[in-house]
Amino acid sequence: MKNKVAVIGGALIDRFGELFDKSVDDMIEEAYLNMIKTVDKNFNESDIQAAWFGSSRAHSGVDLAHPLGLYNIPISRNTNGCATGSDAFRNACFSVAAGVYDVVLVVGVEKMKDSKGGLIARAGEVQDIWRRGRTLPAFFGLRATRHMHQFGSTREHLAMVSVKNHNNGAKYPHAHYQFPLTLEKAMKSPIVSWPLSLMDCCPITDGAAAVLICKAELARNYTDTPVYVAGSGASIYSWQLGEDKALVGFPASEMAAKAAYKMAGVEPKDIDVAEVHDCFTITELVSYEDLGFAKKGEGHKLLEEGMVMLDGSKPINPSGGLISKGHPIGASGVAQIVEIFDQLRGQAGKVQVPDVEYGLQHNIGLGRGATGSAACVHVLTRTKD
Amino acid sequence: MKNKVAVIGGALIDRFGELFDKSVDDMIEEAYLNMIKTVDKNFNESDIQAAWFGSSRAHSGVDLAHPLGLYNIPISRNTNGCATGSDAFRNACFSVAAGVYDVVLVVGVEKMKDSKGGLIARAGEVQDIWRRGRTLPAFFGLRATRHMHQFGSTREHLAMVSVKNHNNGAKYPHAHYQFPLTLEKAMKSPIVSWPLSLMDCCPITDGAAAVLICKAELARNYTDTPVYVAGSGASIYSWQLGEDKALVGFPASEMAAKAAYKMAGVEPKDIDVAEVHDCFTITELVSYEDLGFAKKGEGHKLLEEGMVMLDGSKPINPSGGLISKGHPIGASGVAQIVEIFDQLRGQAGKVQVPDVEYGLQHNIGLGRGATGSAACVHVLTRTKD
Repeated sequence: MKNKVAVIGGALIDRFGELFDKSVDDMIEEAYLNMIKTVDKNFNESDIQAAWFGSSRAHSGVDLAHPLGLYNIPISRNTNGCATGSDAFRNACFSVAAGVYDVVLVVGVEKMKDSKGGLIARAGEVQDIWRRGRTLPAFFGLRATRHMHQFGSTREHLAMVSVKNHNNGAKYPHAHYQFPLTLEKAMKSPIVSWPLSLMDCCPITDGAAAVLICKAELARNYTDTPVYVAGSGASIYSWQLGEDKALVGFPASEMAAKAAYKMAGVEPKDIDVAEVHDCFTITELVSYEDLGFAKKGEGHKLLEEGMVMLDGSKPINPSGGLISKGHPIGASGVAQIVEIFDQLRGQAGKVQVPDVEYGLQHNIGLGRGATGSAACVHVLTRTKD
Repeated sequence: MKNKVAVIGGALIDRFGELFDKSVDDMIEEAYLNMIKTVDKNFNESDIQAAWFGSSRAHSGVDLAHPLGLYNIPISRNTNGCATGSDAFRNACFSVAAGVYDVVLVVGVEKMKDSKGGLIARAGEVQDIWRRGRTLPAFFGLRATRHMHQFGSTREHLAMVSVKNHNNGAKYPHAHYQFPLTLEKAMKSPIVSWPLSLMDCCPITDGAAAVLICKAELARNYTDTPVYVAGSGASIYSWQLGEDKALVGFPASEMAAKAAYKMAGVEPKDIDVAEVHDCFTITELVSYEDLGFAKKGEGHKLLEEGMVMLDGSKPINPSGGLISKGHPIGASGVAQIVEIFDQLRGQAGKVQVPDVEYGLQHNIGLGRGATGSAACVHVLTRTKD
């Protein structure tokens, strides 16, 4: 599938946040209209031959058709925990690479704020585990203490992730939270579940994002700066298998990344910028290792060395990540694709990383109370071989 | 995508029904183990490179991985109303046709009986419409009275669909209901929502089905009688657009069928047998027209002429359809694929149709309270050009 699919448009809604005055339909429409503006030329709604819809709550593809008036085309719907948006993108890419459709729309959306019970709080509900108090911060807290114990990372390292992402998010106009953060403030933030403090957790956020993809050969009809899907990988694993490696890493991420790198024909060192799943700070830290940016047990060293900072050699989460930008489940993966698309086009504004050749998107999702069970990784590039 | 994907295995659980003693996991395992038995040779679990999961209730692909112990591969999850199973199959086919995976598993499952509120009863809940008493029998009842008014079909014609399907189901070992039915009995059945009686409605049923697909070139490694996916089509429409054609037909079905026929290079007359979505008898009757088996407004004539009977020239729902076999949402579309697979292989037992060259599968799903909004159609064949 390498470079057979191009991204030719992509946008988030104006700003993620607690959007009590916007419905799911409002957000879908806003993301779609913003996306259209990013297609440089020849955009014609009737070119869209199919759509994929990522959302935890919807009933069917009709829930995407309705707000856009986009009937008479097939619309598939994917849900795969917090990796929902990426899974929708992945499936859409398959349909184009299979030669079935030329131009396909992908939209991800989630209303997190005014929904009964809260989607995140209920995410572990499927199994008894949830009833025993293992909420998501508790789950990820256990991972953090284990990493600290085994590899010598500290609460300061976690805080450094939060500081980096909040300082990036402060420069990203679509982020939910746009305030800079100091290490001192992060360290004094109240504990949610030891060792994770409030600043270690992503917020509860409403949002939507839309992406337009097409057959690679058609990309230059729509833009002079197309972005190609060089690699796509995904996998499933479960913490409940009880293996040590699943406590200090996400084996699904590792497998997904390997598959994406292999398809793209690149190595971790070739990645210039990445949007990495940081539902909690520990998730990002451990993902440095899973994605091959650091050796196992050395993720925190990238923070010490500054490599992952916006001005470092491999900036991670220029958008502010889920920590600062927010994590509207179905939208998160699609938004990450948009951000890497913007970086590759040189249109990322104040968070632009210079001279990006390869960008990576990484999104994980829960299943059966086992955090990080489903993972998706995409490698995007501006270079078509 | 024509003939690039082959079906090499497929099975339902032993019998659909009210399975209070079987969990979702139990049913997934049973369908999977039954499916394995249908792969003629060289089956190796490690050949499965990815899986697609169709279910309304699950959280993520992990819910399929868990009961099968099938980790370390990507598992996508689709939900698209009552067309969920077909949508999962469709997406799985894209991944194989795109050349990303060689062998892929598709499983559909639904626990309908011991679930709070009942999935079917809640299916219209998304919109106000549900609260105004427009339950699904009411929705489809309106379609029936309209067809009767406009085209002269009668309650007897609806009853003939039920009689045909129950008499077929009585011969199909996996069907929920396995009793023969007379026209007299069907006509005396109590009214649920005029003109639909109890015998016009599909039951509330638990079930699961599994299918194994592979790249066409690899099919003969696994079987001497492979079945090929000749055509795949899908579309979205909404009754709420208020157009007349959406009251006496399902425009999404019509579009999906056209796309599937076009890809397969066949016409409706070439179809030897079909599994058609019959959540209610009127749905099947109208689908004769949508699928091109009858002219608009003449669906009921196929019943009068006997064409759609098991011994007719174009048997519809030899399995008993959803009316007799049951309609476990995520499983229904996958089960239809299995049934057409069995017909093409000559392994459909007492409901075998002689000399099947092309078989069709048709599945519709609700969205936004608008019945029949999402439709999927697949044309399968034993002949690879």
